[in-house]
Amino acid sequence: MSKPIAKPVSAKSPAPSTRSRVKRVPDRGHYDRDTVHAVLDAGHVCHVAFSQDGQPVVIPTAYWREGDHLYIHGSTKSRMAMALAQGEPACVAVTLLDGLVLARSAFHHSMNYRSVVAFGRFEPVPDDHKMAALEAFTEKLAPGRWAEIRGPNKQEFKATMVLRLALSEASAKIRRGPPKDDAEDMAIPAWAGVLPFNTGFAAPEPDPLLAPGTPLPSYLKALTRR
Amino acid sequence: MSKPIAKPVSAKSPAPSTRSRVKRVPDRGHYDRDTVHAVLDAGHVCHVAFSQDGQPVVIPTAYWREGDHLYIHGSTKSRMAMALAQGEPACVAVTLLDGLVLARSAFHHSMNYRSVVAFGRFEPVPDDHKMAALEAFTEKLAPGRWAEIRGPNKQEFKATMVLRLALSEASAKIRRGPPKDDAEDMAIPAWAGVLPFNTGFAAPEPDPLLAPGTPLPSYLKALTRR
Repeated sequence: MSKPIAKPVSAKSPAPSTRSRVKRVPDRGHYDRDTVHAVLDAGHVCHVAFSQDGQPVVIPTAYWREGDHLYIHGSTKSRMAMALAQGEPACVAVTLLDGLVLARSAFHHSMNYRSVVAFGRFEPVPDDHKMAALEAFTEKLAPGRWAEIRGPNKQEFKATMVLRLALSEASAKIRRGPPKDDAEDMAIPAWAGVLPFNTGFAAPEPDPLLAPGTPLPSYLKALTRR
Repeated sequence: MSKPIAKPVSAKSPAPSTRSRVKRVPDRGHYDRDTVHAVLDAGHVCHVAFSQDGQPVVIPTAYWREGDHLYIHGSTKSRMAMALAQGEPACVAVTLLDGLVLARSAFHHSMNYRSVVAFGRFEPVPDDHKMAALEAFTEKLAPGRWAEIRGPNKQEFKATMVLRLALSEASAKIRRGPPKDDAEDMAIPAWAGVLPFNTGFAAPEPDPLLAPGTPLPSYLKALTRR
């Protein structure tokens, strides 16, 4: 296990452990719950790393957050779900690219981003919370949708594993703002600034098999307007 | 090391190894070079997994591709660069979210995405290719920029480690298209289809310290129009 941090280096919340402390550009590190949660709530895909026969493996998968846990789901037959359900050490990253930072020197080129890295071990979510967790996942994707669709039947419920990771060793790393060039480079005539990277939902594409006249629900219109 | 695959299951290119074969929904797996390269060339951030004292670690970082190698760079002092430079086993994933797939049943909700997972060991790029590699990286971000900016000086060059991974054990996994509901669910009146997830560059934001009148170069206008 990792060692606790004795002395936080700033007035910010301290890192919960040595391994979760941001080492490169420590000013970009944040450890308070609100910052970590905000990054997680803005994303849809996480990358889960685990070890399989000594080989590191990283797999992208959908996730959602409930309270102080990050949740994922998968087939009970997937190699990742099986490995994680056994409580193997894991590491999860969520990364949101916000822009390319174009400096006057090659060296100070960078990216604006928000990321979270969390260490820990997943645990299977017990059956008595599994249905509520799947509902929370669907509602994260499209709030209002759960009431309209067919919920999991017994077979689907059984074939789905839900796993969660306590966010007790999580760090956020965030870069914002313009490039930071060296003083002696400021006269270089190159354009400098940020090329913002935008993400968002476009107009919904109906299933070709959708019954004609099926209305687009307001919760999807709201998502598209964001 | 992983075992070679004896019998490809389809007319598609076979998986280069057992561990790089897509197990869940194998129809979504692709192993041909063009497909793997196209996914990699469309992304900006990869997630690199490696093991540190037996603990899996995953870190997001920028990457680029040259030929059959995936490249990353970092400070020579970073824990990831140091671990990877020693040839530790690694795994890299690149994931592009393309949309939320909204089905009539909770179970068939999905995401449209393009991803690549590559196994292997990174190697440090020797000094005689390092400058060309950094140029290739900058040119991937903004084609035309290298000629305008100050290149790395001796100290910056020395402080930067460039690493590359041969793409010899890479797989792509791609989901496209509408939801696939069960026949017995088709009468459910819920809206079904895809909510496309769009990404792209917005209007460039000049550095507040940019000299007035500095023109926006055409290569940045072109990126924003995409």
